[in-house]
Amino acid sequence: MTRRLIESVPNISEGRSPETVEAIARAAVGPECWLLDVSSDADHHRSVITLVGSREGIAEGIHRLVSEAVERIDLRDHQGAHPRMGAVDVVPFIPVGATEMEECVAVSRDVGERIGTELDVPVLLYEGSATAPHRRNLAAIRKGEFEGLATKLGDPQWTPDFGPAAPHPSAGAVAVGARPFLIAFNVNLACDDVDVAKRIAAAVRHSSGGLRHVKALGLPLEERGTVQVSMNLTDFRKTPILRVLDLVRLEARRFGVAVTDCEIVGKVPRAALYDVAGSVLQLPDFRPEIVLEERIEDVLGGDPLS
Amino acid sequence: MTRRLIESVPNISEGRSPETVEAIARAAVGPECWLLDVSSDADHHRSVITLVGSREGIAEGIHRLVSEAVERIDLRDHQGAHPRMGAVDVVPFIPVGATEMEECVAVSRDVGERIGTELDVPVLLYEGSATAPHRRNLAAIRKGEFEGLATKLGDPQWTPDFGPAAPHPSAGAVAVGARPFLIAFNVNLACDDVDVAKRIAAAVRHSSGGLRHVKALGLPLEERGTVQVSMNLTDFRKTPILRVLDLVRLEARRFGVAVTDCEIVGKVPRAALYDVAGSVLQLPDFRPEIVLEERIEDVLGGDPLS
Repeated sequence: MTRRLIESVPNISEGRSPETVEAIARAAVGPECWLLDVSSDADHHRSVITLVGSREGIAEGIHRLVSEAVERIDLRDHQGAHPRMGAVDVVPFIPVGATEMEECVAVSRDVGERIGTELDVPVLLYEGSATAPHRRNLAAIRKGEFEGLATKLGDPQWTPDFGPAAPHPSAGAVAVGARPFLIAFNVNLACDDVDVAKRIAAAVRHSSGGLRHVKALGLPLEERGTVQVSMNLTDFRKTPILRVLDLVRLEARRFGVAVTDCEIVGKVPRAALYDVAGSVLQLPDFRPEIVLEERIEDVLGGDPLS
Repeated sequence: MTRRLIESVPNISEGRSPETVEAIARAAVGPECWLLDVSSDADHHRSVITLVGSREGIAEGIHRLVSEAVERIDLRDHQGAHPRMGAVDVVPFIPVGATEMEECVAVSRDVGERIGTELDVPVLLYEGSATAPHRRNLAAIRKGEFEGLATKLGDPQWTPDFGPAAPHPSAGAVAVGARPFLIAFNVNLACDDVDVAKRIAAAVRHSSGGLRHVKALGLPLEERGTVQVSMNLTDFRKTPILRVLDLVRLEARRFGVAVTDCEIVGKVPRAALYDVAGSVLQLPDFRPEIVLEERIEDVLGGDPLS
C-alpha cells in the first residue's frame, strides 16, 4: 500500500456559517481523499480546509469541494477582512513525502481544466503551475478582488487558463497551482522593543534584501511583553529553516538580544526536521534510509507516504 | 493497522558459513516478524541479525531462530575474535516508535522462559530485564565465555533465570533482555594525533567521568590520515545525541581542533532526530504531532509504527 500523497489547502470565502463550511469540507472526503483540518475565521469571512490524498483521490475530492462551494457561496454579498476573488479563492497543491512538485503541477492543471469546463468558473494557474512569470504571485492575481474581476479578466495579461473569459456571476474566479509546503516559523526575542524585531525581519526577508524564500514581520507580543520575528518559509528545501534561524540569531546579536524560544504554527514536514538534524550533526551523507522507522516502513510496505 | 513494533537483534556465533546464517535468519521470518538486515563478520565468527515485529510476531520469530541456531551451531569447535558464550549469544529487544520499554521486558521474559524450558538452553536476563544489578551488564554475564560456563552457572550469583542450571553441551547459554536503541555515532576531527581523540573520548564517556550513556574510543583513521571519536550512545533519551556532540566540540576546542564531519553507523531512531531538531530550533513544545506526516499517518491509520 505505497501511496504518493498530495496535500491541498483550499481557501473558501465563508467563515461565519459552520454548517456551510462543514458541508463544503465534507464534500471533498471520498476514496483516497482525507480531511485533516478545517479552520474558520469570522473576521476574514474565510476558511482554510486541509486535505490529503492520492493523485486521483485529491483531484476528485477538490472537484467535489469546488462544486459544493460554487453552489453555496455567493460573493455578491460577501464582506470580510481578507482579500478574495472567488467562492473558492485559491487551491494550492503541495507535495508530501517523496511526491515530486511536477505531480502537483499536473494535478493542478487537470483540476483547473475541469473546474473551468464543468463548473464555468474561470481558473488562473499560479505559483509552480503559472503559465507566465507575472502570473506566479497570488497577490498579483487577486489584486482588484471579486469586484474588479470583469475588468481584470478582459486584460489579455490576465486571460484565464481554463473556463470562461468572464467571471462566474456569484463565484468569481479561482487560482489553482502547485507550491512547496509553507512553514510558519516564529522566533521570540528577549527584548521589548518592536523596532528590533522589525529590523531583524527586514534583514532576513527576501523583499528587503534577505533570504530568497523568507517572508518576515516584526511584531509585539502584548501578553508576554516581548517581541517576535514572525516568518513564512515558502521553500524550506532551498532556504532551510536552520539557516533562517541562524541568520536571525546573528542579526539579533547586533542588538545584544537573545532568542528565547521559537514556535512552529501548524505543521512542519518531516524532511525539514531531518534536514535540521543532518545539518547540526554534520552528517554529510544523511539520507532518510538511515532512519530506523524509514527502513521498517520500506520492509513492511505499510507506509502511506513513500 | 496500528501496530506497536519491537526490534530484536540476535547475535549468533556463526560468521563464516553464509548458508548457515541465511537458514537461521530465515527461520525467524513469519507472521508479523520481518527481517531487516543480516551482517556477518568472519574474523569475529559472528553474525548480527536485525528483525522487527509485533509483540507476538517477534516472540515467535526469535524462538524459531534460536531453535534453528541451537541445532546448527556447535560452540565446542568455535573460535573467533569476539567473546561469546552461546550459539545464540545475546538477544536484545528494543522498543520502536511509541512502544514502551516495559513491553520489551515482558517479551524478553516470555521468550527467555520458552528457550529455557523448550530448548534446554540456560537463559540469563540482562540490561532492562536483569533480576539483579550485577546481572545487568552483558560483558559481566559473558565473562569466562563458553569455556567457563559450567563453573560460572554453578555460582549462585549466576544461576540462570530460566532453563537448566548447566550449560547446553553445544549451545552454551544465552543472554536475553530489553534495552534502548543503541546509536553508533562517530565524530571526525581535523587532526592527525590519535592522543587528542583518545583524550576527548575519555572526557565524554561514562567510564572515565563523562556522560552517563556514552561509550567512546579514540581511533586513527588510517586512510584519511585523521582521527575519530567513535561512540556508542546507549540511551539517547537520557543522554541526547546533540549534547554529546556539543561536548565533543567543546573538548576538541581545548586542542584547537575542529569537527570536520560525523557519521551514524547503522540506523538512528526518528525520535532522536526529532529531538535534535526540536532542541536546535528552540521549540520547547515540540511534539511529533506538529510533523505533517505524523498527522497524516494518524488520520490515514496506515502507520505501522505508532
